[in-house]
Amino acid sequence: MSIIVLGTVALDTVKTPFGKRIKMLGGSAVHFSMSARIFTDVHLVAIVGKDFPPQHLDFLRRKGIVLDSLIKTGGKTFKWEGEYEQDLNCALTKKTELGVLLEFCPSLASHQKNIKNVFLANVDPDLQAKLLDCLESPHLVGLDSMNFWIQNKRRSLLKIIKRVNVFVANDREARDLTGENNLIKAAASLRRLGPDMVLIKKGEHGVIFYCDKFKFCLPAYPADTVIDPTGAGDTFAGGFMGYLSRQKKLDVLAIKNAIVFGTIAASFNVEAFGMEKTSRLTLKDLQRRLTEFKKIVSF
Amino acid sequence: MSIIVLGTVALDTVKTPFGKRIKMLGGSAVHFSMSARIFTDVHLVAIVGKDFPPQHLDFLRRKGIVLDSLIKTGGKTFKWEGEYEQDLNCALTKKTELGVLLEFCPSLASHQKNIKNVFLANVDPDLQAKLLDCLESPHLVGLDSMNFWIQNKRRSLLKIIKRVNVFVANDREARDLTGENNLIKAAASLRRLGPDMVLIKKGEHGVIFYCDKFKFCLPAYPADTVIDPTGAGDTFAGGFMGYLSRQKKLDVLAIKNAIVFGTIAASFNVEAFGMEKTSRLTLKDLQRRLTEFKKIVSF
Repeated sequence: MSIIVLGTVALDTVKTPFGKRIKMLGGSAVHFSMSARIFTDVHLVAIVGKDFPPQHLDFLRRKGIVLDSLIKTGGKTFKWEGEYEQDLNCALTKKTELGVLLEFCPSLASHQKNIKNVFLANVDPDLQAKLLDCLESPHLVGLDSMNFWIQNKRRSLLKIIKRVNVFVANDREARDLTGENNLIKAAASLRRLGPDMVLIKKGEHGVIFYCDKFKFCLPAYPADTVIDPTGAGDTFAGGFMGYLSRQKKLDVLAIKNAIVFGTIAASFNVEAFGMEKTSRLTLKDLQRRLTEFKKIVSF
Repeated sequence: MSIIVLGTVALDTVKTPFGKRIKMLGGSAVHFSMSARIFTDVHLVAIVGKDFPPQHLDFLRRKGIVLDSLIKTGGKTFKWEGEYEQDLNCALTKKTELGVLLEFCPSLASHQKNIKNVFLANVDPDLQAKLLDCLESPHLVGLDSMNFWIQNKRRSLLKIIKRVNVFVANDREARDLTGENNLIKAAASLRRLGPDMVLIKKGEHGVIFYCDKFKFCLPAYPADTVIDPTGAGDTFAGGFMGYLSRQKKLDVLAIKNAIVFGTIAASFNVEAFGMEKTSRLTLKDLQRRLTEFKKIVSF
């Protein structure tokens, strides 16, 4: 079944110890799409400005991403400029130009309103709520956020959290939102805010999954080539949600597999700048690395 | 088969958000012993001063630890005072009194010299080399160290590393010693320094194992009660080395199991101050938690 992703389409300028890319295609919704598309149809909901290169639109279409609810408007596309130093786990934001994001009001084409799966990637929680309101009967709703909204729109965020099935946060966000330093306690505390399922992403240290029925801890794939981790979290979420969108039952096995596929997809993302690797990924690539990964983590 | 551990016996004063203990029994060799004893006979090589409480000696004897090479001398027992704030992964050292450690010259009783397994816990690398020289034909040699020796006795440390089978380091030490930020690269780089097997401990994030034949990544047990993590690394090493000491073949299965048992032992260590939990642990306790752990990490 199809999935909708609401988020950003950005022009990213990224510097890492391995090189620099200027205004390459980026953004939470695009990184999500690159892994979710491997499993299902992806409908992208976002906004870009007049300066958005047409070849990026062609690229997204060629990847099968449905752009019917991608708004093209005057003004400037959202831009992010970041740098990673030796510690590739930690991005230093150099510049953010919100541009058209400031006027973003997401909506859906009528044929998209009955789609059952949706991922609300990191944007203003009020916009996330607005998109959720457009859907007739959502079945699987995932949510991501960031520290900025935790600090500045806490109330709106707590309201939308109640309405979702899966909340995805990184370790710092989980700690900030709950005030719990212990991540297992933080996960339990997030669960009490509403979502049945909580996923805490720990970058190079993997993920923790928490629901009432079971916990699941998974290390990251041990990548010895990390070139640019930008978008790894969204790539993970895309693999996770994309895989789940295709399952009839959200049981333990399906959830664990979804987390594993998300982890594997993210491991490709960090191996190159932007979407250089993930845009070419196939299910076969994921499965091949999964077989190797299984040997590395099983006992 | 028996195992020798060289390390410290200390009186620890520890403050965490959950309470404080003053001059409780601690030290790398003691924490190691508490988990290694579950699998095999442990021979402790260390030094204590005149002020060392006799009840601690009785306690160690009751736990089956062989104290024939524990030196009791005049002067003061090694003391460490530390504090953990909200982030229990990070100890702030408040005070260190080396005391009798400054005059420590380890030696073995003659009946101990043919023991095949040895763990050189964190002390001066020259003392570690001295103890290794006492052994007639060591078979499995494990080594731990710390940043102080990496910075101040790098040459001695690099010399002893060449002589061991297993090098155990935490993530910071692995990065400092190799200059590699990526932990997989750091592990490979440590391997090139000599030891067949490299174990990188990441605290709450688990461990990475590296050897020429295979890699193994394991998350930590998801403990929601962390009271005092002091000694968790040594408890891990004790479980790992203790388990391996009992195996005939050091194959993939044995090594993975040893890492799992070390992880489980460490998970009990953090749940209480000092050795309050690990001193009462049985193989059955470890096996019970292992069954639960397997469900949490397998897919």
